[in-house]
Amino acid sequence: MPEVLVEEARRFMEDSLTAVGAPVSEAKAQADLLIHADTVGHYSHGLNRLEFYINDILSKATDPCAKPVILKESAATALVDGCDALGATVGNFCMEVAIRKAKEAGVGWVAARRSNHYGMAGYWALKAEKQGLIGLSFTNSSPILVPTRSKTSALGTNPIALAAPAKDGDNLVVDLATTAVAMGKVEIQVHKEEPLPAGWALGPDGKTTTDAKLAFETAKLLPLGGAEETSGYKGYALSALVEVLCSGLSGSKSTHQVRGWELDSQGGPPDLGHCFAAIDPGCFAPGFEDRISNCLQHWRNLEPMDPKLPVLAPGDKERKNYAETQKRGTINYPQKQYEAYFKMANRIGIKPMQIV
Amino acid sequence: MPEVLVEEARRFMEDSLTAVGAPVSEAKAQADLLIHADTVGHYSHGLNRLEFYINDILSKATDPCAKPVILKESAATALVDGCDALGATVGNFCMEVAIRKAKEAGVGWVAARRSNHYGMAGYWALKAEKQGLIGLSFTNSSPILVPTRSKTSALGTNPIALAAPAKDGDNLVVDLATTAVAMGKVEIQVHKEEPLPAGWALGPDGKTTTDAKLAFETAKLLPLGGAEETSGYKGYALSALVEVLCSGLSGSKSTHQVRGWELDSQGGPPDLGHCFAAIDPGCFAPGFEDRISNCLQHWRNLEPMDPKLPVLAPGDKERKNYAETQKRGTINYPQKQYEAYFKMANRIGIKPMQIV
Ligand SMILES: NC(=O)c1ccc[n+]([C@@H]2O[C@H](COP(=O)([O-])OP(=O)(O)OC[C@H]3O[C@@H](n4cnc5c(N)ncnc54)[C@H](O)[C@@H]3O)[C@@H](O)[C@H]2O)c1
Ligand SMILES: NC(=O)c1ccc[n+]([C@@H]2O[C@H](COP(=O)([O-])OP(=O)(O)OC[C@H]3O[C@@H](n4cnc5c(N)ncnc54)[C@H](O)[C@@H]3O)[C@@H](O)[C@H]2O)c1
Repeated sequence: MPEVLVEEARRFMEDSLTAVGAPVSEAKAQADLLIHADTVGHYSHGLNRLEFYINDILSKATDPCAKPVILKESAATALVDGCDALGATVGNFCMEVAIRKAKEAGVGWVAARRSNHYGMAGYWALKAEKQGLIGLSFTNSSPILVPTRSKTSALGTNPIALAAPAKDGDNLVVDLATTAVAMGKVEIQVHKEEPLPAGWALGPDGKTTTDAKLAFETAKLLPLGGAEETSGYKGYALSALVEVLCSGLSGSKSTHQVRGWELDSQGGPPDLGHCFAAIDPGCFAPGFEDRISNCLQHWRNLEPMDPKLPVLAPGDKERKNYAETQKRGTINYPQKQYEAYFKMANRIGIKPMQIV
Repeated sequence: MPEVLVEEARRFMEDSLTAVGAPVSEAKAQADLLIHADTVGHYSHGLNRLEFYINDILSKATDPCAKPVILKESAATALVDGCDALGATVGNFCMEVAIRKAKEAGVGWVAARRSNHYGMAGYWALKAEKQGLIGLSFTNSSPILVPTRSKTSALGTNPIALAAPAKDGDNLVVDLATTAVAMGKVEIQVHKEEPLPAGWALGPDGKTTTDAKLAFETAKLLPLGGAEETSGYKGYALSALVEVLCSGLSGSKSTHQVRGWELDSQGGPPDLGHCFAAIDPGCFAPGFEDRISNCLQHWRNLEPMDPKLPVLAPGDKERKNYAETQKRGTINYPQKQYEAYFKMANRIGIKPMQIV
């Protein structure tokens, strides 16, 4: 697989975005979001997504120069119009408001409408965590989750993220799609040309399939929990919970009204809804970080079923991947992806990504 | 199965609680919580739990006369000491504070420590929903969830609840244990003498079992999602999220430190942590209830795989059960349970529950 210096991948992302009209500040913000995903090992949400953002700007679905505005606010809340700006522009704006309000009122709760795809939900929660707060973030997305008992999809992978600080820079990061897996994981299996485990996705007949390509084309994901008997309706219910906090509060489209997110960027601005929150543990019982550390250590020290597979705390997998990427200084991208971006570079007139 | 008038079951619960020293107001509050569970069909959290509460009062683990106090507050937050009061006493106190703060600041976020088992999480979320707010509630519990890859249990069934108002009295209620199923469901299968579906619980060997009695004794539940391959670590991560909001914020015991909840009530006050929140949709985009109704209708009208099993919105199952119970005016309790409560009535010197 072509190996690219992290800073070269970042340069390429920034150049791509500025070439299609994004201001440097917003190109840097969006690139940082994508680089984060690639360095923590969530490749589906890194470079993999760049061409979608580029095409959304070219089709005018996204306005990279737009600035979000607060439409309404109270001591602990704000309603934001994202004005079709880039997801990272909206995310940074909203999370800063949530953090400021949490510091003033104990909690900051912000809902945004007219936004675009904002990448990893956990990236936004971590913005608050870095300031000693609990960060929360949620977003709706395109309809690919099939509600329990339904023939068709109606909700999104609608992720839930929470990040909480622990002692000495340690932390707990929950960041998960409410489907059994995120669509990006199915896509990665397609690129790898490998089958899916059972219970991830449905085929066109409404039955579980292990054919990655078929699953990707069908775009019908099972909610977390899988079948009704194993409580798959809980994943569906959690996706609905995200919908309440995103489209419900913000007035954006509900997921079932959102267009598909395709490379050809048809259908105009997606009008996605997000929700961002920050909670100040300083307003509650002293010793918050000690308690989180105690939990993290307790879980990590649990005796594993298989000694080769230690018990992880939520967030540990990404932490390990991040440390490895930092050490290596490079990211490996699949050959096909590299080639697609070589083509895109020519199309928008920028220097292609250099391989080490 | 013995059939009991709803009001007679309520009378019996109230009498039981006052007989062991609860003030009438708190006995009524706790009975209302249990009756709610029995009328919406969550029998595991209704009369089924009463004897635990009675024994906790008799052993002085619970002080039914205690009054919770606010230890610390800000515009949008409060930290509450539950003072080992009954779960319903703590729940009512905290949710009232959260509602008041939501009306003032947009959000009210309340964490409580030194509490007892508070029943159905959704019951508390509904208190806010009835006032036009989004209600949220979370609690930690006894350690019976086995984290992914671990040999032993370390987290609770730690439920997540959200209730949101829709038009014309309709609503959306998400209320779920972060395990594949709640322990009460395994218990019900034991009473019914029926096996478990695969993927609910583990046997003493750490492998999935369908033997309800064995599963109940082993007390090792799988997180929502089941095995690692089907993303069971997401259920584990959601249970950890609940831990952050409950023991993390409140300073209560973390689940792995909480004693088991047994009929013999050993080990003193459990020091459970809860979290209650209310969010005022009026601080966000107009039309909140219309949007929630639109989602509910969209989901309910989805074409089902099996025409005999319509697609439900979260909360519909409980709504249907409630309507049926109201119509019938009675609750059916398993013979064994009825007999156990006949004995308990004699033990604490009150009139046994009358059968219709
Ligand atoms: N913007 C969008 O529309 C959108 C939609 C869906 C997903 N996403 C993002 O995609 C990313 C991937 O989502 P996903 O659902 O595939 O995540 P995932 O399944 O890879 O991980 C989910 C969570 O589980 C934790 N985890 C993983 N293995 C674990 C183990 N063995 N023990 C304990 N914890 C473990 C991770 O640390 C993480 O917190 C997320 O960042 C999510 O926010 C974004
Ligand atoms: N206090 C505690 O310590 C504690 C611990 C665990 C659980 N509980 C309570 O136990 C109760 C039962 O929990 P559970 O996990 O067994 O709940 P459950 O599995 O019965 O229901 C979970 C949720 O899914 C919804 N649902 C069910 N079937 C559906 C379908 N086909 N389509 C759409 N939605 C559907 C329900 O309306 C509910 O909102 C809850 O009230 C919970 O709060 C309490």
